[in-house]
Amino acid sequence: MFPGERICFHIAAAWVVRKEGMRLAFIVKKFGGSSVATPAKIMAVARRVLEDTAADDRVVVVVSAMGDTTDELIALAKAVTGNPHGREMDMLLATGEQVTVALLAMAFTSLGRKAVSLTGFQAGIMTNGAHNKAKIAGIAPERVLRELDRGKIVIVAGFQGMTKSGDITTLGRGGSDTTAVALAGAMKADVCEIFTDVDGVYSADPRLVKTARRMREITYNEMLEMARLGAVVMQPRAVEMGKRHGVPIHVRSTFIQLPGTIIREGYTVEEREFIVRGVTHDTNVAKIAVLGVPDRPGVAYRIFSELAEANIDVDMIVQSIRNADKNINDIVFTIAKPDLPVARAIVDKLGQEMSFIGVIAEENVAKVSVVGAGMYGSPGIAAAMFGALGEAGINIEVISTSEISISCLISAEKVQDAVTAIHNRFFREDDDSNL
Amino acid sequence: MFPGERICFHIAAAWVVRKEGMRLAFIVKKFGGSSVATPAKIMAVARRVLEDTAADDRVVVVVSAMGDTTDELIALAKAVTGNPHGREMDMLLATGEQVTVALLAMAFTSLGRKAVSLTGFQAGIMTNGAHNKAKIAGIAPERVLRELDRGKIVIVAGFQGMTKSGDITTLGRGGSDTTAVALAGAMKADVCEIFTDVDGVYSADPRLVKTARRMREITYNEMLEMARLGAVVMQPRAVEMGKRHGVPIHVRSTFIQLPGTIIREGYTVEEREFIVRGVTHDTNVAKIAVLGVPDRPGVAYRIFSELAEANIDVDMIVQSIRNADKNINDIVFTIAKPDLPVARAIVDKLGQEMSFIGVIAEENVAKVSVVGAGMYGSPGIAAAMFGALGEAGINIEVISTSEISISCLISAEKVQDAVTAIHNRFFREDDDSNL
Repeated sequence: MFPGERICFHIAAAWVVRKEGMRLAFIVKKFGGSSVATPAKIMAVARRVLEDTAADDRVVVVVSAMGDTTDELIALAKAVTGNPHGREMDMLLATGEQVTVALLAMAFTSLGRKAVSLTGFQAGIMTNGAHNKAKIAGIAPERVLRELDRGKIVIVAGFQGMTKSGDITTLGRGGSDTTAVALAGAMKADVCEIFTDVDGVYSADPRLVKTARRMREITYNEMLEMARLGAVVMQPRAVEMGKRHGVPIHVRSTFIQLPGTIIREGYTVEEREFIVRGVTHDTNVAKIAVLGVPDRPGVAYRIFSELAEANIDVDMIVQSIRNADKNINDIVFTIAKPDLPVARAIVDKLGQEMSFIGVIAEENVAKVSVVGAGMYGSPGIAAAMFGALGEAGINIEVISTSEISISCLISAEKVQDAVTAIHNRFFREDDDSNL
Repeated sequence: MFPGERICFHIAAAWVVRKEGMRLAFIVKKFGGSSVATPAKIMAVARRVLEDTAADDRVVVVVSAMGDTTDELIALAKAVTGNPHGREMDMLLATGEQVTVALLAMAFTSLGRKAVSLTGFQAGIMTNGAHNKAKIAGIAPERVLRELDRGKIVIVAGFQGMTKSGDITTLGRGGSDTTAVALAGAMKADVCEIFTDVDGVYSADPRLVKTARRMREITYNEMLEMARLGAVVMQPRAVEMGKRHGVPIHVRSTFIQLPGTIIREGYTVEEREFIVRGVTHDTNVAKIAVLGVPDRPGVAYRIFSELAEANIDVDMIVQSIRNADKNINDIVFTIAKPDLPVARAIVDKLGQEMSFIGVIAEENVAKVSVVGAGMYGSPGIAAAMFGALGEAGINIEVISTSEISISCLISAEKVQDAVTAIHNRFFREDDDSNL
């Protein structure tokens, strides 16, 4: 039996604790660009924060730039220079969050609550000097803590920091999530709440599978694996930051005032671990089959090192013997769809040099996966997954596994059928236990 | 004879010196919001700066927010809160200049010249904590100088600074001019060039007087007096800053590559000073005549102290005896037109209390003035001015004088006639000497 195991009803620790009145909550809340896209939405965020918050809670709010602001700033830069990047691009983009924090502080004040906005620098977010994709080197949260002590809601510009030499940096993709989780870690906040347009992490994409369930909890590793395999609810970088600092991350809806999904190290009910937690899919995949590769040392190395030099990530790899007598093999691998033209050119070039029998590229593929920390040492999972696909008449082209996941490459048209079949196998429709 | 005296042809010291190749020029250049309103205009500013600049010149460029950006940010704030002001407003508005400096740095780079942008804080502009109208408390230009030493053009965000406690401030009206002049003073630059949409300071408003001449030089005091009397080419605050630090200010055109007007302490040709330098006018004036004021101590004090309490600046004041036997006087004074309703209400209230004979308010007035540092001790000037007005059939309602100016209040419809008549009297049409 593969259904997920039952777990007690559990929600964000800090949220529960505050409701019980045992002590103050200390919460970092992060709202993304679409939640703060207009002055009206900024007011709504301020109201939402106050609804969730007792007067004595310590609350830090991290926000991104309003709606399309970042794209508009990039367009301005492109009107001036062909390839905007580096230090000046960070100087430019950092203004986006600075606008939001100022407006949100005004919104709180107009609702009668003391608030103060801080840039990344003012909040003590120190980074290395890798402009456009800086890494957080340290956090000096003294000013944030001082403003909290004064009873203020502290609003911090996400996505940005400053180098030791006083230059403004930005953190790249998922930067605001990272700011929020890192700040929560440095200040030992109870929880970091990530508000998004979904209300949590689901056992499968609810747009594909109607019976998909929202999970109450998931481990950092499971979340990272689900993101890697196509379910990007949060940027993996922020999840890794949470894992490193032991910060519980609560993914919840901007619009619905209900608990979402808590990402943390282990489950609050320790005796049981889920076997399968989620079913993911990824259609941003392409396959290259290299037929008749000479079976001698260094050939596979040539293929994959040249792909690596071109900055192409190879995901699944299968090598099979085509003809043992002739010492030739077939190699099949997958890459991200946008990399296909470059990858194809590299393999074709090597094919001429080393006389491959043929190269077949295929865009019309997708990857479906099951993820679960309890999967290791449960060999039946793979069989159950393959069985579900087989019963649904879906052919498996490539298989790969990790400690906490199994993935199958299938035809892209079959994605919905495949995800549904696998989900039905592991999550019984009448069973709400795997939450 | 009143025509202005002849002066040698003289232009910005630094400009001359560089052309003669004697030493490097060290120039601070300031461009306002309309000069950087679009990416194309930002490119044009970069090209203009490079045209004016030798490879080894030390150049700092101070810029304002692009075009209407500040108004757009204010509108955003007003959509969130009724009366946006204070710390958060500065946080918001400071993003405007930050966008411009980043884009301008990209523009220089795309033209092949090394450049770096700095926020007010990064440029070492330290201010007091008076948000929205902060005063510069000190400048620590080390980083600017270091970047100049590296051969970079340094672009500094005008209008903004930071307090000792790390909060962003803005300098209020004319802030970018003030930033530029203060930086030039702190770094002992040769000259601060203020680029504007006019090509210098004129002996009268060229829109009113076709024969108005652009001056090559003017003293700080004359410029301040002309600004006070209606000719606001530059914010007086920046002129005062220049005077305090002895920074020559070169007011010149963004569009025409010719010298404009240098504002400095004295004239480069020392033996002569101009008697009349300029004719100014101000139509933003209203007059209140208080008739039949009891001539006893404290009455005038009551009127003007209540106006001061309402934050109303009184400009010209004339008291005349109405009836010596009855010990009553008339008092006439002028104020800025927008202050008229409040001022009128104050005077009416006092009139009921103290039984004035009447109060007459008049909006349809204007002030014309002549300004010149050499005027003191030249009593003929006033007579010549009154004569010019009399010959043109213009009635003088009120007269006031300062050490370096004489002003007459006249009917608003007569402004153009008055300015032209006075200008013709002091500047002969066939004489280009007063430049």
